[in-house]
Amino acid sequence: MLIDCCWVACSLQLNFEFRSDQILGDEMGFVGRFFFVTLTLLFAVLFKSYREFTAPAPVPDIDYQEYWGPGDGKNYKENVEIKPFQLAYGDDAIEKLKNKLDDRPSLVEPLEGTAFEYGFNSKRLQEILNFWREDYLDRWDERQKYLNSFPQFKTQVQGLDIHFLRVKPEVRNPKRIIPLLMLHGWPGSVREFYEIIPKLVTRSDEKEYVFEVIVPSLPGYGFSQGASKQGLSPAKIAVIMRNLMVRLGFQKFYVHGGDWGSVVGNLMATFFQNEVLGVHLTMCMNTAHIASVKNLIGALAPSLVVDDKNVDFYYPYLDRLKLLIAETGYMHIQATKPDTIGAVLTGNPIGLVAYILEKFSTWTNPNYRKLSDGGLEKYFSLDALLDNVMIYYLTDSITTSQRLYAETFNIKELSREWDRIPTQVPAACAKFRHELFIQTDWALRDHFWNLIQSNHFDDGGHFVAMQLPDVLYRDIVQFVNRLYRREEQ
Amino acid sequence: MLIDCCWVACSLQLNFEFRSDQILGDEMGFVGRFFFVTLTLLFAVLFKSYREFTAPAPVPDIDYQEYWGPGDGKNYKENVEIKPFQLAYGDDAIEKLKNKLDDRPSLVEPLEGTAFEYGFNSKRLQEILNFWREDYLDRWDERQKYLNSFPQFKTQVQGLDIHFLRVKPEVRNPKRIIPLLMLHGWPGSVREFYEIIPKLVTRSDEKEYVFEVIVPSLPGYGFSQGASKQGLSPAKIAVIMRNLMVRLGFQKFYVHGGDWGSVVGNLMATFFQNEVLGVHLTMCMNTAHIASVKNLIGALAPSLVVDDKNVDFYYPYLDRLKLLIAETGYMHIQATKPDTIGAVLTGNPIGLVAYILEKFSTWTNPNYRKLSDGGLEKYFSLDALLDNVMIYYLTDSITTSQRLYAETFNIKELSREWDRIPTQVPAACAKFRHELFIQTDWALRDHFWNLIQSNHFDDGGHFVAMQLPDVLYRDIVQFVNRLYRREEQ
Repeated sequence: MLIDCCWVACSLQLNFEFRSDQILGDEMGFVGRFFFVTLTLLFAVLFKSYREFTAPAPVPDIDYQEYWGPGDGKNYKENVEIKPFQLAYGDDAIEKLKNKLDDRPSLVEPLEGTAFEYGFNSKRLQEILNFWREDYLDRWDERQKYLNSFPQFKTQVQGLDIHFLRVKPEVRNPKRIIPLLMLHGWPGSVREFYEIIPKLVTRSDEKEYVFEVIVPSLPGYGFSQGASKQGLSPAKIAVIMRNLMVRLGFQKFYVHGGDWGSVVGNLMATFFQNEVLGVHLTMCMNTAHIASVKNLIGALAPSLVVDDKNVDFYYPYLDRLKLLIAETGYMHIQATKPDTIGAVLTGNPIGLVAYILEKFSTWTNPNYRKLSDGGLEKYFSLDALLDNVMIYYLTDSITTSQRLYAETFNIKELSREWDRIPTQVPAACAKFRHELFIQTDWALRDHFWNLIQSNHFDDGGHFVAMQLPDVLYRDIVQFVNRLYRREEQ
Repeated sequence: MLIDCCWVACSLQLNFEFRSDQILGDEMGFVGRFFFVTLTLLFAVLFKSYREFTAPAPVPDIDYQEYWGPGDGKNYKENVEIKPFQLAYGDDAIEKLKNKLDDRPSLVEPLEGTAFEYGFNSKRLQEILNFWREDYLDRWDERQKYLNSFPQFKTQVQGLDIHFLRVKPEVRNPKRIIPLLMLHGWPGSVREFYEIIPKLVTRSDEKEYVFEVIVPSLPGYGFSQGASKQGLSPAKIAVIMRNLMVRLGFQKFYVHGGDWGSVVGNLMATFFQNEVLGVHLTMCMNTAHIASVKNLIGALAPSLVVDDKNVDFYYPYLDRLKLLIAETGYMHIQATKPDTIGAVLTGNPIGLVAYILEKFSTWTNPNYRKLSDGGLEKYFSLDALLDNVMIYYLTDSITTSQRLYAETFNIKELSREWDRIPTQVPAACAKFRHELFIQTDWALRDHFWNLIQSNHFDDGGHFVAMQLPDVLYRDIVQFVNRLYRREEQ
């Protein structure tokens, strides 16, 4: 590359030197020429770097059989059976949890005059623990029944037992059934989609079709087995998810995702461009370096890169960066010491509530840090929030869920720059005002070559499937409406 | 400042323009002059910025009475009594802890082929929990007796009960007694100094004097009360520590510190230059921006800024930076969400052991991440490590200890750039190979104007008082030997 640069630079340099004499004539003295040539050289190097920097990368070869279970897998024979699954936690587990909740630690009072600025307010935590212990757990049978209200299954993929909901349309003689894979993130679970699923699988005026919805637990999350091997990155999870869909008989399907689900969904749309019909994401990202550069350039003149009315979704850059730094401590520790923070949280329901629900407060709206109740019940019910925490607690899956950060944020994985591979799959980015991190379409289009929908919403945060299921539902339908006739033909 | 810059730039510009015509004559065309003037302007702005950037700042006014206790403190009357203190945790507390240790969570197995690379190895954690439960706690009376083996006290300073050891020399008719304040850090405690104290307070050939040692628990750490108010930063703790020394009758004294103790010790030497006779630090830092710039410049040609044999203490810069990023997840979360991670760890002995002892492994030597036992017992006894964990567990002080990060790493506090204030206090920096973060003397001298000792040690990490008490002892004595005669005169 360096040789290339020099070659381009030299030829441009000679060319410019020759022409500059013609253009500038005698005005161009020795010093002037020196600067001119230097600038030219610099420009050439930058131009060449830019081309290298932005050159599309090819789709890699995919290993569809890579084994993630324990041992060397030499005698592994995949059990392709699809087994029904139900949560069945009885009195023992709940009594044990009650005992743990009765054994409250001496939590330190919040600093005077603070709400959630220093993290989860300990007074609010006590309230939630009381509700959990005295109210929610007494209704566990009802909650468990609700969590079992959609058909659930497990099947083995690449050495791992993968759990998923599969909800077929509740419609007689549907005109058309569209398969939709929905991918959750951290610290979420399949529970994030319980409010939106019924809207998707039923008939309505907005859509001529109905969805069949497949909602897996990511490997290592909830009821899906975690890897025994290092390296189960989002790119590798994308393969597992694709294999799951093939197992279920779907050769072509739509994907929706948020948080890690967004990352995995994006990678599926990148690697499996003939299988993914369309990808709808809430935390749309182009992680290639060029996107960061564009994000930064946009900061100089935001209104040149985004509509004036949406500028504050992205800028001021420094404010967004400060928020990101303030909200990514969990990411930093999970990317570097997942097993430590995992050991700290495993079997620790009080810790799990604080650690997980803090995210449901601040990521729904950063201003909730100033509210003594964390604004948690503005959109969510405590039942819904605790359902999600119960999944982490009962499955002891917090450590394996956190390892995904370590498998992503390491130099080997990051250097792959997967988003340098453009995808032709039709894509939609739903942009909610309080999402942790979003990018301009200008940056996204370098990767999403077929970005056909990008809606901005004045409200909404990171867990929008639970927070604003109607809004998200309509955005998904709007996207599929644009496309579904096309593939019918 | 901007006006200053422009003024300097314009005058330099005119000057250069005038002279350049003389020097370069006709060779200097229009384009050349344009570039020349632009460069001059840039140079002038940089020069002026550099001067602003490096200008010494004055010592601020100190509020010696600032109140940190609960309420408005209007009726606060400081209780100046110095009360003896002893740990007195009986069977109830220990039985409760045993019950907690019997209730083991289902820790996830380490990934195949990993030791401490993903954080605390869960197999090793089980071993340590077994030892704690079956061995250490059965000997709690003996351990508590050991923790009580030095005289301890509490006294009220600025609204907070401050705990400290005060160990007078065990020497008849000492020739000279030198008071030494020793400051611990996170996740340490007064326990860090138990091995070194006996060496300091007894007579020996190396020194003509003996030390009287004062070892406080930092506010919010161990047996010292935490603040009820926001803002108890290291700069404010420095005032409390100085007031404690005055309370004990010491008008002039030496200070030693590591980790936060190093930060606080440095600030004491900055604010109280007539009271601190000398400051000896293990994690010596100049946190002014100019030091970071120098650190970076040094990376271009390390051997120009440090002795060849010590280059690898500081460089390659990128390797040091990578290590720092890998090891500062805890810092990121504690600086932004101390109350969340605090709630997660309070009353959680299993979590505390994993979270705290991980630091004693990796910060002693980053290569210990590759050892399945974390190398914990290479230098430390499990008894010593668990003594320290017990202090955090029994006092429920983990949250208040972690808040110190939030009180430091916020824009208001960081922008004060305390290290822009030079200190004339004689200073020593003991540099251990595996210390998390150290700076070149070139960078340190901008703040420590009287840096009289800077020794590099081929071994040793962050908790060197516990790890290599002999080595640290000799370095302190070497430093005091250089000075003590001077002040006698």
